[in-house]
Amino acid sequence: MTRMQDAALRARALKVIPNGMYGHESVRLLPDSFPQFFSKAEGAYIWDADGNRYLDYMCAYGPSLLGYRDERVEAAARAQAALGDTLTGPSPAMVELAETLVAMVDHADWVMFCKNGTDATTMAMSSARAQTGKRIVLVAKGAYHGAAPWCTPIPAGTVAEDRAHVRTYAYNDVASLEAAVADAGDDLAAIFASPFRHDAFIDQEAPDPAYARRARALCDTTGAMLIVDEVRAGFRIARGSSWADLGVAPDLSAWGKCFANGHPISALLGSDSCREGAGAIYATGSFWLSAVPMAAAIETLRIIRETDYLEHMIRLGDRLRAGLDTAAAGSGFVLRQTGPVQMPQIMFEGDPDFRVGYAWAEEMLARGIYVHPWHNMFLCAAMTEADIDRTIAAARDAFGAIAARRDELVPHAVLVAMAAAMATPETAG
Amino acid sequence: MTRMQDAALRARALKVIPNGMYGHESVRLLPDSFPQFFSKAEGAYIWDADGNRYLDYMCAYGPSLLGYRDERVEAAARAQAALGDTLTGPSPAMVELAETLVAMVDHADWVMFCKNGTDATTMAMSSARAQTGKRIVLVAKGAYHGAAPWCTPIPAGTVAEDRAHVRTYAYNDVASLEAAVADAGDDLAAIFASPFRHDAFIDQEAPDPAYARRARALCDTTGAMLIVDEVRAGFRIARGSSWADLGVAPDLSAWGKCFANGHPISALLGSDSCREGAGAIYATGSFWLSAVPMAAAIETLRIIRETDYLEHMIRLGDRLRAGLDTAAAGSGFVLRQTGPVQMPQIMFEGDPDFRVGYAWAEEMLARGIYVHPWHNMFLCAAMTEADIDRTIAAARDAFGAIAARRDELVPHAVLVAMAAAMATPETAG
Repeated sequence: MTRMQDAALRARALKVIPNGMYGHESVRLLPDSFPQFFSKAEGAYIWDADGNRYLDYMCAYGPSLLGYRDERVEAAARAQAALGDTLTGPSPAMVELAETLVAMVDHADWVMFCKNGTDATTMAMSSARAQTGKRIVLVAKGAYHGAAPWCTPIPAGTVAEDRAHVRTYAYNDVASLEAAVADAGDDLAAIFASPFRHDAFIDQEAPDPAYARRARALCDTTGAMLIVDEVRAGFRIARGSSWADLGVAPDLSAWGKCFANGHPISALLGSDSCREGAGAIYATGSFWLSAVPMAAAIETLRIIRETDYLEHMIRLGDRLRAGLDTAAAGSGFVLRQTGPVQMPQIMFEGDPDFRVGYAWAEEMLARGIYVHPWHNMFLCAAMTEADIDRTIAAARDAFGAIAARRDELVPHAVLVAMAAAMATPETAG
Repeated sequence: MTRMQDAALRARALKVIPNGMYGHESVRLLPDSFPQFFSKAEGAYIWDADGNRYLDYMCAYGPSLLGYRDERVEAAARAQAALGDTLTGPSPAMVELAETLVAMVDHADWVMFCKNGTDATTMAMSSARAQTGKRIVLVAKGAYHGAAPWCTPIPAGTVAEDRAHVRTYAYNDVASLEAAVADAGDDLAAIFASPFRHDAFIDQEAPDPAYARRARALCDTTGAMLIVDEVRAGFRIARGSSWADLGVAPDLSAWGKCFANGHPISALLGSDSCREGAGAIYATGSFWLSAVPMAAAIETLRIIRETDYLEHMIRLGDRLRAGLDTAAAGSGFVLRQTGPVQMPQIMFEGDPDFRVGYAWAEEMLARGIYVHPWHNMFLCAAMTEADIDRTIAAARDAFGAIAARRDELVPHAVLVAMAAAMATPETAG
């Protein structure tokens, strides 16, 4: 597998982009062989800049829900683009899309659209503060809610005041949540929660129903807003609110990534309990009301409602999880596969510095399968049973290859340095 | 001109969107007859949801630089969309676009792409703080640099700490700037400036060269970063940095709105003086590296370089300004036309509560010309001399119509309330 184009692009990028790349799609924390640049995509597959094809288990870190360039969604986007996109006001599609989301997401009475997941989580925080007149927001320790100064996991360039009223609790730990609420006294504005614990570098955790219900009850008692951050998991867990099955309705939920199947749009959804607060804040962006992503979202949500995309992903995810366990055992490895099967986290037992996981990811990449060693992955509806079976077969070979050279594996230097820095985010700044 | 569809959409929107709309494209602060929803656009024209056509002097608040749906740009966007948009990594177009901007904008050695103008200004602030290790940023009083908690003009839902180290000076006032820098002591991270003073509700001001040069000198002395916020004015003043003619090079510049002719992308550009700081911050978004807006930007920037789009807009702007002055005088009105002619602000002498300006805007709208009573407007390259002459003819009629009923005009109730609230932004929160 040659990567000459990728290497040439990286050399050019290093001159005109700080560090050559930034953000969550930088390969700085991935195995050295991972390509940085991609030239095209279709369905479940991506091609790197050198034309190598991969079955993509990252799905653009979530946005590809139905598969890349789904023709139904693209046709809707093209039809709207032939009319207009970013105009001097919103298009009728905005109202239709807001009505669609309100109909699909149980707790939601209203919607505000934006562009980044961070926009939606930040608007949630501001709306909660405006609604309650209080300041403190609680977030689960280690949870990712975006890259703004109040929530970025790497605090370089921020100031201590950016988190003056942001405090942490332990996910799924009722006692910890209760203590944080008690500490907030009469100044609690909101409790943030992810639908499940999908932090990087660690095993994922399903939400304990007792934790979710206690969060709701504490908000009811204090008047604080319960905020579920659906940006990463939304519509991969359910066709509406991810906590609906738990019987827990938030006041606010933040959505993004996949509800227009890759077209740029995110949203804050809210209940009437926070309508006044949301109406009081000033939030806007040059492209927030653009029509093309809204048309793409309307069609994506139709497909979400009318097809078995979700059950299909879960069937494939079950098949993958079982197949990988068996294949790993064949070479003496024990996997820790956590998270929903359609959003799998795959790590190795007895691999604290990820050296085995990195080596496995490289072996998979060499076999045309793009997996991630420390971030949750994403299945998409365009994947097939044949894709899963090919993945399992490649995994079997990959496990064998790393078993044969296990003693030679070394940890990834940048990851080790970063993990150390990430372990103490609150002390930097 | 019927607006039944618009009224029906507004009624539906009121249920599923807080206040029925939000942000800078809400018509809450516009004359009552202004439509909220638009169904299509082409070139210099927009159509409202009822099919009424308007010559659009807002250009989507800036993004339409070459005209809506410019076929050269749309063809480039479609070609990229046929390959892929939001992928698991950036496309080669990202490197080409970064190189293009570095070549076109004198001070820039590197680029980081994002989605909102607010992303770019916030990243500029964080990069400056990371680079300098200092905290205080100075912004001109009343300047708009985005809608994040640290800069939003309406502080509902923010906390006092969001602006703990944000201080103000008076635009174009060297003594005020010097005093603010002195007050910052050894903790000055950055000075923000707009290319010209384009605040809402007031006459626009060209930058005093002495002010721009003093800002640069103060940054040189203190080690602070000079940040020019080009989001609104960029590429409507010059084919590169708007302050290049003044001989003043910033360390950082924030760009957005129009450089992909309406496709969603913004950017932070920087000099090597701030490369390390920019490389240290964590900034990312799900769609920031998407390829379609980058392909659209490459083509838009080619047209910017290779055509007389700018001179054409300036010629039309000169013709408009002169024609409007004459037409106004014919009905006894004196206009205050400020700002670059291609980004005109048009207000009426002796109209402190905007009642005349609002009435004129309504008369223009009724004649198929969309003008704004208190925000700077935007010309685009798709406008023609015939469009300008038609505008002047409509204006002559409109001036006559409001002259005939001048004693009956009343101020806009929401605007009066908002203007009062905006006059004391620092006291709210």
